[in-house]
Amino acid sequence: MATEAESADPPAAYTALLDEIERYNAVGSAQSVLSWDQQVMMPERGTPARSQQLSTLSSLSHELLVDGDVGDHLDTLDDESLTTDQQAVVREVRRQYRRAERVPRDLVEDISEASSEALGAWESARENDDFDEFAPHLERLVDLKRQYAEHIDPDADPYAVLFADYEPCLPLSKAESILDELRETLVPLIDDIRASDADLATDALDGTYDTDTQEDLARDVLELLDYDFDRGRLDTSTHPFTSGNQFDCRITTRFDPEDPLGSLLPTIHEFGHAYYTLGLPDEEFGTPLGDDRDLSVHESQSRLWENHVGRSEAFWELLLPKFTDRFPQAEDLSVRDAYEAANQVYDENLIRVEADELTYHLHIIVRFEIERELIGGDLAVDEVPDRWNELYEEYLGLTPPSDAVGCLQDIHWSHGSFGYFPTYSLGSVMAAQLYDAADDAIDELDRRFALASSTRLASGSARTSIATGNDTRRAS
Amino acid sequence: MATEAESADPPAAYTALLDEIERYNAVGSAQSVLSWDQQVMMPERGTPARSQQLSTLSSLSHELLVDGDVGDHLDTLDDESLTTDQQAVVREVRRQYRRAERVPRDLVEDISEASSEALGAWESARENDDFDEFAPHLERLVDLKRQYAEHIDPDADPYAVLFADYEPCLPLSKAESILDELRETLVPLIDDIRASDADLATDALDGTYDTDTQEDLARDVLELLDYDFDRGRLDTSTHPFTSGNQFDCRITTRFDPEDPLGSLLPTIHEFGHAYYTLGLPDEEFGTPLGDDRDLSVHESQSRLWENHVGRSEAFWELLLPKFTDRFPQAEDLSVRDAYEAANQVYDENLIRVEADELTYHLHIIVRFEIERELIGGDLAVDEVPDRWNELYEEYLGLTPPSDAVGCLQDIHWSHGSFGYFPTYSLGSVMAAQLYDAADDAIDELDRRFALASSTRLASGSARTSIATGNDTRRAS
Repeated sequence: MATEAESADPPAAYTALLDEIERYNAVGSAQSVLSWDQQVMMPERGTPARSQQLSTLSSLSHELLVDGDVGDHLDTLDDESLTTDQQAVVREVRRQYRRAERVPRDLVEDISEASSEALGAWESARENDDFDEFAPHLERLVDLKRQYAEHIDPDADPYAVLFADYEPCLPLSKAESILDELRETLVPLIDDIRASDADLATDALDGTYDTDTQEDLARDVLELLDYDFDRGRLDTSTHPFTSGNQFDCRITTRFDPEDPLGSLLPTIHEFGHAYYTLGLPDEEFGTPLGDDRDLSVHESQSRLWENHVGRSEAFWELLLPKFTDRFPQAEDLSVRDAYEAANQVYDENLIRVEADELTYHLHIIVRFEIERELIGGDLAVDEVPDRWNELYEEYLGLTPPSDAVGCLQDIHWSHGSFGYFPTYSLGSVMAAQLYDAADDAIDELDRRFALASSTRLASGSARTSIATGNDTRRAS
Repeated sequence: MATEAESADPPAAYTALLDEIERYNAVGSAQSVLSWDQQVMMPERGTPARSQQLSTLSSLSHELLVDGDVGDHLDTLDDESLTTDQQAVVREVRRQYRRAERVPRDLVEDISEASSEALGAWESARENDDFDEFAPHLERLVDLKRQYAEHIDPDADPYAVLFADYEPCLPLSKAESILDELRETLVPLIDDIRASDADLATDALDGTYDTDTQEDLARDVLELLDYDFDRGRLDTSTHPFTSGNQFDCRITTRFDPEDPLGSLLPTIHEFGHAYYTLGLPDEEFGTPLGDDRDLSVHESQSRLWENHVGRSEAFWELLLPKFTDRFPQAEDLSVRDAYEAANQVYDENLIRVEADELTYHLHIIVRFEIERELIGGDLAVDEVPDRWNELYEEYLGLTPPSDAVGCLQDIHWSHGSFGYFPTYSLGSVMAAQLYDAADDAIDELDRRFALASSTRLASGSARTSIATGNDTRRAS
């Protein structure tokens, strides 16, 4: 059956569906360029025009999916007559369509506008350490996102509905059990590590490192990893991120003169995201087959490179000569010391994006619990700061001295992104599974990093697109 | 009547029209960001995705104008009940709508796609000095643009229809008579200048100038001119250009180590464009009242600053200390010598964008004549190179040694932009008129440049938006 379908022309409704979806996705990828520009290039006072551009594209994108003929084509299509690839396209479009058609356009625009306004308020609130400035915006976004979830599925747990925007292939209950297991394992493990008297070279990279030279080193590392600069760029931004598609996927990082690892590891992390995106098939651009699977899978690729390659002793054998070449001040640094520094568990870190590999997940779990309570109606917005501090004390033994380094530290809620945080931990877990499988299959995997043959590690996993969504689900 | 309308709420159809038009213009300004990025930031291999984004936004933009309710609102509106500002909005939207509604969406997409493909072919043809590579694309674009003109007005001269896309306020016949007058005056004037034995300091700026320092100097000049970096950026690109809106208007320039004026004057030129755009009213963003009048008016602003300020002796009094501060090698340069160098008429220049103030218009007239003949069906595409060389010989006494520095030098035809070139000369003429009027009205105008009070010169003229279209037409 599938073989017959392969060789025949696709049904007219399928071709027509694909045309509509390519337009829909072209608008989405245009939005990504505008967002990248906003975070990396846009002058300070450009926001009013950018908000209007982005909110118009949001509503146009929504209309392209639900107001045109997509629904009719989906009704017409008989999946049996399609190839497996075509079925994957239809399955994914149907999923997106069924969610979007239930959401009124006004609500889509309200969310886009409320987010635009919340972003500025959050930036100011964080700067002034004044949660009250942000609170009304957060309240509005929680309310709008609950309405949004209610429209999509009035009978479901609204948080589960929101979570599915970011991770549609894994039920929330499964995600929750993974996070539970992480918490139960990590809290005592971190206690043990803190109590341990092992003498690690945690201060091996202390010192001051010129930031221009750090940027040169970041480019060295990207060359080493085979990042394709003809299809990408490296820039700086407040928060490192990756944006783009298989033809043009850009990464950002940031530089702190006191913390060279704080630039190197995020650079490797973002490389992982970009490497996945740049591995998606060119000829499927604009269709679900040419798009990433979801945020957890994306994060599995970034974490694979950051944690399993970038923090490995073998990789530092390769990296150290480049490091000392750029920073002769570190000529006495040994591979072992760098490795220990890159893998230390911090005692007092309050900031998620600066967390080590272990405590990282406790930062996620705090956010997960709070946003579930917020969306579930079990926590009022004005209770967030106290709840945050209570959970930090419980899981990390730390109390933030201010909301600026507490519940105001992350951008996500100002975007209205509730349900996003868990994908970070899920991605890390997938990365560990992928690495474990690769380690079983490939002889002396980690030694190969030192021989600079590491760059092919992800070439297989980078093919995890929409088409293999089911496999991905099983792998989790 | 107007006073009553001012104080009343606008008619519902007007408010609804404005909503639609704001969305339409938001898509247009999003397209500008994508184009800026393509020319300044995009990695080399990003074109396939960018073409798809831009062509989708082109067709969406067309649909927003013609397929929605804009036509109905325009039919419903009784202009008598509107304020003069509202009437200006309706007049401009009606003009755009009446043109767009006659053009089929397929043709809009064909033109967008053909241009995307032509751009790459033109770049390659120019690099390889091989007109044949570009010819089939040019032929297709000429054909598509003739169809486009035919749809808009089957009874009109198709070139006049295309010209109105760039300059809707001036009939082609008027433009033609201005260009005729320029040619008749300039050809003998340039002959006289070339025959003159005046000894000018044409080589005063000869030498090698570090390009990073040139960039520092360009920023000095922009600071001097009061360019608002909170609403703009300076970057480099192959061809200097300006892009943006009143919240975010960016300029580019380029640097040649042998030619500091080749960066300074374009920087001042682009500043003029940006200064006009940044002067448009914030609260009208997204409506015709917050948009520029047209290309000729835009060019009048850039030329005003480039030719009448940037090439003035008084301005060089202000600039020279900054110049010698950045380039101590030029410590012996006098204001008079710099002024003479900046105003020299080149004997042998073949390149439009490097032309002096006088020969510039002859470059324009060559293009104007050729594109009229092409669109009128009086010249075949394969005859373009010979015709080009013939006209250069006739007007400039020069024969290009290759098509690369001949008919392949400009990007415009690869965009399908036929009718664009004349606006450059029209803008220069308007600039001269504006300067002349300002000089009459303001005592010792040019001396004020030397006192750094020049930056208010354009503050009045920068208000020439759609609302004052009629005044602009009269001024031309």
